[in-house]
Amino acid sequence: MKVAKFGGSSLASAAQIKRVFDIVNSDNKRKFIVVSAPGKRSGADTKVTDALIAYHKACKAQDERGIKVYQDWIVARYLEIYNELNMDSHIIEDIKENIQQLASLPIDNPYTYDTFLAAGENNNAKLIADYFSSAGLKSRYVHPADAGILVSSDPGNARLIQSSYERIKYLNDLEETLIIPGFFGVTAKGEVCTFSRGGSDITGSIIAAGVKAELYENFTDVNGIFAAHPGIVKNPVPIAELTYREMRELAYSGFSVLHDEALVPAYRAHVPLVIKNTNNPEHPGTKIVVQRETKGAPVVGIASSSNFSTLYVSKYLMNREVGFGRKVLSALENLGIRFEHMPTGIDDLSVVIRSHYLTQPVSKNLIANLIESLHPDEVNIERDFSIIMLVGEDMKEHVGVTARATAALSEKGISISMLSQGSSEVSVMFMVKEKDEKEALRAIYSAFFE
Amino acid sequence: MKVAKFGGSSLASAAQIKRVFDIVNSDNKRKFIVVSAPGKRSGADTKVTDALIAYHKACKAQDERGIKVYQDWIVARYLEIYNELNMDSHIIEDIKENIQQLASLPIDNPYTYDTFLAAGENNNAKLIADYFSSAGLKSRYVHPADAGILVSSDPGNARLIQSSYERIKYLNDLEETLIIPGFFGVTAKGEVCTFSRGGSDITGSIIAAGVKAELYENFTDVNGIFAAHPGIVKNPVPIAELTYREMRELAYSGFSVLHDEALVPAYRAHVPLVIKNTNNPEHPGTKIVVQRETKGAPVVGIASSSNFSTLYVSKYLMNREVGFGRKVLSALENLGIRFEHMPTGIDDLSVVIRSHYLTQPVSKNLIANLIESLHPDEVNIERDFSIIMLVGEDMKEHVGVTARATAALSEKGISISMLSQGSSEVSVMFMVKEKDEKEALRAIYSAFFE
Repeated sequence: MKVAKFGGSSLASAAQIKRVFDIVNSDNKRKFIVVSAPGKRSGADTKVTDALIAYHKACKAQDERGIKVYQDWIVARYLEIYNELNMDSHIIEDIKENIQQLASLPIDNPYTYDTFLAAGENNNAKLIADYFSSAGLKSRYVHPADAGILVSSDPGNARLIQSSYERIKYLNDLEETLIIPGFFGVTAKGEVCTFSRGGSDITGSIIAAGVKAELYENFTDVNGIFAAHPGIVKNPVPIAELTYREMRELAYSGFSVLHDEALVPAYRAHVPLVIKNTNNPEHPGTKIVVQRETKGAPVVGIASSSNFSTLYVSKYLMNREVGFGRKVLSALENLGIRFEHMPTGIDDLSVVIRSHYLTQPVSKNLIANLIESLHPDEVNIERDFSIIMLVGEDMKEHVGVTARATAALSEKGISISMLSQGSSEVSVMFMVKEKDEKEALRAIYSAFFE
Repeated sequence: MKVAKFGGSSLASAAQIKRVFDIVNSDNKRKFIVVSAPGKRSGADTKVTDALIAYHKACKAQDERGIKVYQDWIVARYLEIYNELNMDSHIIEDIKENIQQLASLPIDNPYTYDTFLAAGENNNAKLIADYFSSAGLKSRYVHPADAGILVSSDPGNARLIQSSYERIKYLNDLEETLIIPGFFGVTAKGEVCTFSRGGSDITGSIIAAGVKAELYENFTDVNGIFAAHPGIVKNPVPIAELTYREMRELAYSGFSVLHDEALVPAYRAHVPLVIKNTNNPEHPGTKIVVQRETKGAPVVGIASSSNFSTLYVSKYLMNREVGFGRKVLSALENLGIRFEHMPTGIDDLSVVIRSHYLTQPVSKNLIANLIESLHPDEVNIERDFSIIMLVGEDMKEHVGVTARATAALSEKGISISMLSQGSSEVSVMFMVKEKDEKEALRAIYSAFFE
């Protein structure tokens, strides 16, 4: 059986929902359907979720006129889809009532905001289940509480309780095609609690792991993932298959297709994932697998990401002091700063940190702490770096990958501020000045793909 | 004024001591002369220091015959030099008495061993001072206690007490050429306490710092330092000048000319150091300076060193756990393991460790600790790596240094297990399998120097 998740743009209109129906209906293995809230129909449109946020704000401000405006807009949004699908069920009354009742929830309850947000997915799932059934595919709407998605009590940042998988498994016993709203679960006390935003992908991944799906299909509005950012590299090659580790490195370093967290449940359950295009379902898309046969090309993708800084600490004979590196990391940890990399020389070390951590007061504090605890010869922070990440499972076996990449940068006269190879089995990291990021990415892409 | 230190091979015979006299006498700035014990005259010879170690052993074993043999051999060694120098002073009686009296020292006293060892330098200094004076250069033997070299009470591993510099300064007020035995100082209680072995270099460095010498001349039996190990690279180019930082990186990574510790006092006092050849004093040697003008060539030297291991730890989404890297380093610190490098990937990190730390039980313990505290997906230790270190102050400004080095390795089909550039401002680190070390060094040398 397969889990298919459809994003907001795939469910923004009646026409899109009909496509989704055709996709689901064309393969009887597509039994578990996870849906988002209706997204934008065009660039200037408003997502239902964003309207729900505004609606919540109006409730908080006791802005009666605003409340009415948003209620009407949201209900109209569902009604339009309902009408265009030529539906004829009571579901639209349910949806209307549900949207209106949100206004009477206790506004100070920490779960109320999550309940507002979740209404987008929840009502869409009800509508779609009804439509699918009316169109001839016996379907059932399943609330996350009934699906067994029990989560921690962290509004806006729910975490799955591990025992949930035991209950999710029983969804296999239901006969119908199951339509499950994404993005939220329920706490032990029955409160609605959402995952971090973009969380429908997480729901799909959880269901896939729980029912032990053979495949998790993640339908979006793109044909899959490209080997480099299409905004920087012209017509980059598409990636047919990559591993979870590769995906994780790419996602981390700038690729923004699936949220990291969404990959974990499927990865841990060894369920392969495929990213497909709702508007081009024939396209094979990009498959993410636990292991793949490598096929000669050492690099599968190249990502880049800006806004990095370095903390540099040097001290003559530093290397002799057991605990020096650990003390630097402790100083960072005490200020709540996460570090990305810590390449070290003999008597110096650099720590790569995302720039947003290093506000002026934090930087000042950090440097003062380090001077006091370590008496370094030199300590400074440098900003405006970008990271370029070459990713590929097969790189380790290929002599010369780094040689080719460094030569490409050297030819363009681009300075490598930092280079780390071999720490990770699947990536090589280059750090360059932010101003060189795009040219560096193009040069390396060209060295491996052209 | 200059400090000149002469090593054991420069003082092994009367002929050598005459050369040393000529060197000192030829430049009236050479006022502070630090001497080692007589070294080997030829390959099969015994160093006086080694004979003193054997003498101490015989005393400990109450081996009367052995005691006599070593006493006689050591005294004869000084006597031979004395005779060949045609000296005519009472000093040889002093030396004889001093050597013989060692046997009556309390053998269980923790400083007795150090006193035995120091006798080699101490008596040589007396002899040389007398000889220099008799040869027409007014000289004075200065015991480290009189020179103000006050050290911590750590037999075999003495550390200079910082306040010593204040007293050493007054050596400038003495008129004669001062002959100071290297290798030891005295504790606050007046006990003889030696530096770690090879410590005459340390004494020279301390005196240079204390008297604020314009130059510290370290006379050895080589013309200076080469850009690569002459045992691996055929006829490597000599290095005319390098900075303390460069020297430190090279010494650390396999160059064995001066002990690290010996560099520190001179470095901190900004005294330049020159390594010269007693047997070829016209040769300019290799100068070690605080700062140098870089002259186009980005790489000044290439060192290599074997016996490294890597600890690899990976965990999916590890990057999100603040404190992950710090915990790994704490686990190492708790086992007393010093780490060399810690390059990190997104979800994994490698720690480079000198293999001797990782005995079987320690490795087992370390891995068990990490599994328990971090629940990693994977943790393992790999052995038999070597490090190749490219060193040069000017590398940072040169685009393409890494490109050239990686291309050289790639051409030879040598895999780079790890590469770290940019963490240190003066070095690039390559890790290769131990079996590839020599070929890798030759390939990189050839890329930069041929």
